[in-house]
Amino acid sequence: MSNTAGQIIKCRAAVAWEAGKPLVIEEVEVAPPQTGEVRLKILFTSLCHTDVYFWEAKGQTPLFPRIFGHEAGGIVESVGEGVTHLKPGDHALPVFTGECGDCPHCKSEESNMCDLLRINTDRGVMLNDNKSRFSIKGQPVHHFVGTSTFSEYTVVHAGCVAKINPEAPLDKVCILSCGICTGLGATINVAKPKPGSSVAIFGLGAVGLAAAEGARISGASRIIGVDLVSSRFELAKKFGVNEFVNPKDHDKPVQQVIAEMTNGGVDRAVECTGSIQAMTSAFECVHDGWGVAVLVGVPNKDDAFKTHPMNFLNERTLKGTFYGNYKPRTDLPNVVEKYMKGELELEKFITHRIPFSEINKAFDYMLKGESIRCIIKMDE
Amino acid sequence: MSNTAGQIIKCRAAVAWEAGKPLVIEEVEVAPPQTGEVRLKILFTSLCHTDVYFWEAKGQTPLFPRIFGHEAGGIVESVGEGVTHLKPGDHALPVFTGECGDCPHCKSEESNMCDLLRINTDRGVMLNDNKSRFSIKGQPVHHFVGTSTFSEYTVVHAGCVAKINPEAPLDKVCILSCGICTGLGATINVAKPKPGSSVAIFGLGAVGLAAAEGARISGASRIIGVDLVSSRFELAKKFGVNEFVNPKDHDKPVQQVIAEMTNGGVDRAVECTGSIQAMTSAFECVHDGWGVAVLVGVPNKDDAFKTHPMNFLNERTLKGTFYGNYKPRTDLPNVVEKYMKGELELEKFITHRIPFSEINKAFDYMLKGESIRCIIKMDE
Repeated sequence: MSNTAGQIIKCRAAVAWEAGKPLVIEEVEVAPPQTGEVRLKILFTSLCHTDVYFWEAKGQTPLFPRIFGHEAGGIVESVGEGVTHLKPGDHALPVFTGECGDCPHCKSEESNMCDLLRINTDRGVMLNDNKSRFSIKGQPVHHFVGTSTFSEYTVVHAGCVAKINPEAPLDKVCILSCGICTGLGATINVAKPKPGSSVAIFGLGAVGLAAAEGARISGASRIIGVDLVSSRFELAKKFGVNEFVNPKDHDKPVQQVIAEMTNGGVDRAVECTGSIQAMTSAFECVHDGWGVAVLVGVPNKDDAFKTHPMNFLNERTLKGTFYGNYKPRTDLPNVVEKYMKGELELEKFITHRIPFSEINKAFDYMLKGESIRCIIKMDE
Repeated sequence: MSNTAGQIIKCRAAVAWEAGKPLVIEEVEVAPPQTGEVRLKILFTSLCHTDVYFWEAKGQTPLFPRIFGHEAGGIVESVGEGVTHLKPGDHALPVFTGECGDCPHCKSEESNMCDLLRINTDRGVMLNDNKSRFSIKGQPVHHFVGTSTFSEYTVVHAGCVAKINPEAPLDKVCILSCGICTGLGATINVAKPKPGSSVAIFGLGAVGLAAAEGARISGASRIIGVDLVSSRFELAKKFGVNEFVNPKDHDKPVQQVIAEMTNGGVDRAVECTGSIQAMTSAFECVHDGWGVAVLVGVPNKDDAFKTHPMNFLNERTLKGTFYGNYKPRTDLPNVVEKYMKGELELEKFITHRIPFSEINKAFDYMLKGESIRCIIKMDE
């Protein structure tokens, strides 16, 4: 691959020309990586709700043409100046948020919200020079969250690239770039349920199922799924969910239903819907004295979280998390190892596989609610 | 003292006959302790805001006549059946909340909210038989939070009595029964600031100053006091407070002022006022990524805590605490030792000392805002 280093690479990318319109496979030019950047050959990518959200651009700043995609696995093609932790041939996962290693957040054991490389959904260019590395016949095409993995080659800030075990199958571990780690880490790193404890998971989409997987791995004995769609329970069982509550089936608030089921409340709750009502329920359904609720789902702009302060004074804790509190470069290789050892099961998240040429099908599956994760094979 | 065991003891008590009216020193009969109870000879007591609050009975269920008092130090006079951890002559601190040792809260490492002996401000009788141990010429007088320490002798559930080092001066450690431990533990046990970190304390009353003392002991380097009364800063310096913000001096919200002072927010905040506005400010002034805010102050009945959920999602934590998360029987002896070793300074909390016969003066000092703690010597 080294003969392409320093050269513009022409390759296929799925370009979103307009909000909500099908992506078009185009030939794009991908410029070489600049200082601190890496060019990756993407082998597998998957579709996440966040791609769909910004593609639809309802209420978001529209930025088109743009190359979406932020869950992927690939191989380093070449590196820019100053990049020391990656070299051509390394297997890697690009991540929508980064780890510069130098800011107070990177130096803190508790935070993964890097000052320099924290997610920025409005920026469609590289940090280095505020320019895009993608173009079509000289016309720049915008990046998306610094990853733009719906392209056979992409340029990413090296701080946003995790080097992983080369034996790990990229067609599976690629889903660790976003949603799965978000839910998994929310439970394992933030809620931290003890073996034998009870955990309520609000929302049984991909992130919620990953949160349930985290509870299963942690040894929780009661994993209560909460969702407005009862048919999701069946699938959720695979992820360790062993009880189910549909708020629509009850006249009383779901927090009260759960408190009655659990002799006063669950030990932990993880909120993965972004609904403000679910956030309140998730907080108020944890047991006084020791209960911890973790917010994961992203709310609307004007939402307000509201509760009586006595719910806190009775020794409940409310925390939020971003990307499951994983530091991309430091922690992701270990999550991959967890999969390699068989502790973390990724196969069950993968419901569909399609060739890159049919990428729009992945959007259909997600919009219809049929898929958890759809793997897109780039060379097909 | 053992010659009084099993007998009714006649002694002096300060009785509140009516809401807001001066206490009257009366001769009361104190019945012997029943199963699981202890009779204490109180040597020193102090006045806490909670006494004043229920004595004023504004908005609270009025329960009179009643013997208030819940911060005290004394000696065990006799014990009821089944009491094994205390014997006559033991030095002890009664506490308004207890530790049965058997319930899920007592068995949890995280909680001190004992199911059996959790504070109950509406109950004016003993748990055992729903009767009072106090009477005046046969007329029962109500207990207060199971302690009623404004009496030379009182009967307390054994689960609410901490046995302490007999060498500890009761005229000082008596203040550990409530407010001081509440603030101290909020910082040390719940906020857990690291050495060198920044801590904001909202409210510089007794509890807030104790929270500051906890920050000082923890090695925090910046301790920012927040209070609407600027004159409190001078005294607060003794407790480690080294910066001061009066929200009235600023046009912008105090959380913004603090964020600007601290390059994005403090590491920890402890809210000791009970004001809903201060609660929001305390939460929103902690740094994203790792900030923890702890609520201590008790809000009004109809208050609602309100914030944008993104404040949580940016990895902030909000916790509440009750009695600083100290388990009365297990933890209080260690707090006393912390004082004995010179780590915890109690003298600076004690601003006044008066004889029991002048107990109403303690109410005056507190209502005028002149005292932090006023020690009342029972045999004078």
